[in-house]
Amino acid sequence: MKLQFAIDTLSTDDALRLAAAAAPHVDILELGTPLIKSEGRAAITAIKQAHPEKLVLADLKTMDAGELEADLAFAAGADYVTVLGCAGDSTIVGAVASAKKHGKGVVVDLIGVADKPGRAKEVVALGADLVEMHAGLDEQSEEGFTFATLLRDGAEAGVPFAVAGGVNAESAPSVRDAGAVIAVVGSAIYSAADPAHAAASIRQTVA
Amino acid sequence: MKLQFAIDTLSTDDALRLAAAAAPHVDILELGTPLIKSEGRAAITAIKQAHPEKLVLADLKTMDAGELEADLAFAAGADYVTVLGCAGDSTIVGAVASAKKHGKGVVVDLIGVADKPGRAKEVVALGADLVEMHAGLDEQSEEGFTFATLLRDGAEAGVPFAVAGGVNAESAPSVRDAGAVIAVVGSAIYSAADPAHAAASIRQTVA
Repeated sequence: MKLQFAIDTLSTDDALRLAAAAAPHVDILELGTPLIKSEGRAAITAIKQAHPEKLVLADLKTMDAGELEADLAFAAGADYVTVLGCAGDSTIVGAVASAKKHGKGVVVDLIGVADKPGRAKEVVALGADLVEMHAGLDEQSEEGFTFATLLRDGAEAGVPFAVAGGVNAESAPSVRDAGAVIAVVGSAIYSAADPAHAAASIRQTVA
Repeated sequence: MKLQFAIDTLSTDDALRLAAAAAPHVDILELGTPLIKSEGRAAITAIKQAHPEKLVLADLKTMDAGELEADLAFAAGADYVTVLGCAGDSTIVGAVASAKKHGKGVVVDLIGVADKPGRAKEVVALGADLVEMHAGLDEQSEEGFTFATLLRDGAEAGVPFAVAGGVNAESAPSVRDAGAVIAVVGSAIYSAADPAHAAASIRQTVA
């Protein structure tokens, strides 16, 4: 299972500092949506240039103009982009067309989708490389949120899946055991007093 | 009815040039989602500084971290932000909280929502200022797309609404007649040989 570090800061400088700390212990560096909206495509380029040996994911959460948005992120250095599962099929097809053109990949983020296993199958049939079983930052703070639902949805989908939604050192092994190909870790690294140590600890639990 | 110009370019320079051409004829300058992902919050600031007398809308299409994303756009100079209708209620509530803090506004973009009138009522009850009955660029090129559905949904919703999805000089009067408070015009201005003339012509049809 790969580890993906979701860098949810608002400045490229902070993102570079956090990426440098975590990079030795993770496989994929993710630029969070707020970071991209704050700093633009230049943030993607900065992270890729600083870490050319790592996969870089631009969490675009695209809802429209699938090909155009994917094109701009791939041109800036991204290896993967995300498209929303609640986007129309033509938007996902557009992003997949861009990925094929660039030799890169598309992840469909199922945040907000009610039937995650059903939609997961559909979007992989449309050409997405994998799906992300994802509970957002806002959803995680809602009453009744349970992480276990994401793991069940992933296992039920029967397609390659990542899990995101508050993964930490305690829960990472359960993500691996559920069959996820990627565990996405955000706050457990970027909010830690020592991000490098936090990333190393999480890696150790799933090594 | 106000006219909103959706600036769907990828560079701030192009956006500034188009905004300068159209501004005398429109009320609201919208930074399209791909522009924000390409250039970041600096594009919002550039447009607002160039046109302090115009309302500026940042088409964030927020799906998560509602308060954080709205905060960054309002701080950069936006008067309005968009949140996706398919986002969870807590994300919309977060953006509304940010808008109240800054004395600004929230538009909920109903792109991709099946029951647009029903969701429109819900999000206005959550504190959104208005909704956007919106068919995306990808959806407009799908077979079976009809502009008339957006107008019917708007009239049925019974809350303040904008219409976006290929509005031009020909269709703008029907948007006004359906009761929209805002007509959003994109390609009909930015793809025109003479954007200033195109904007003036559309304004004239609904003056």
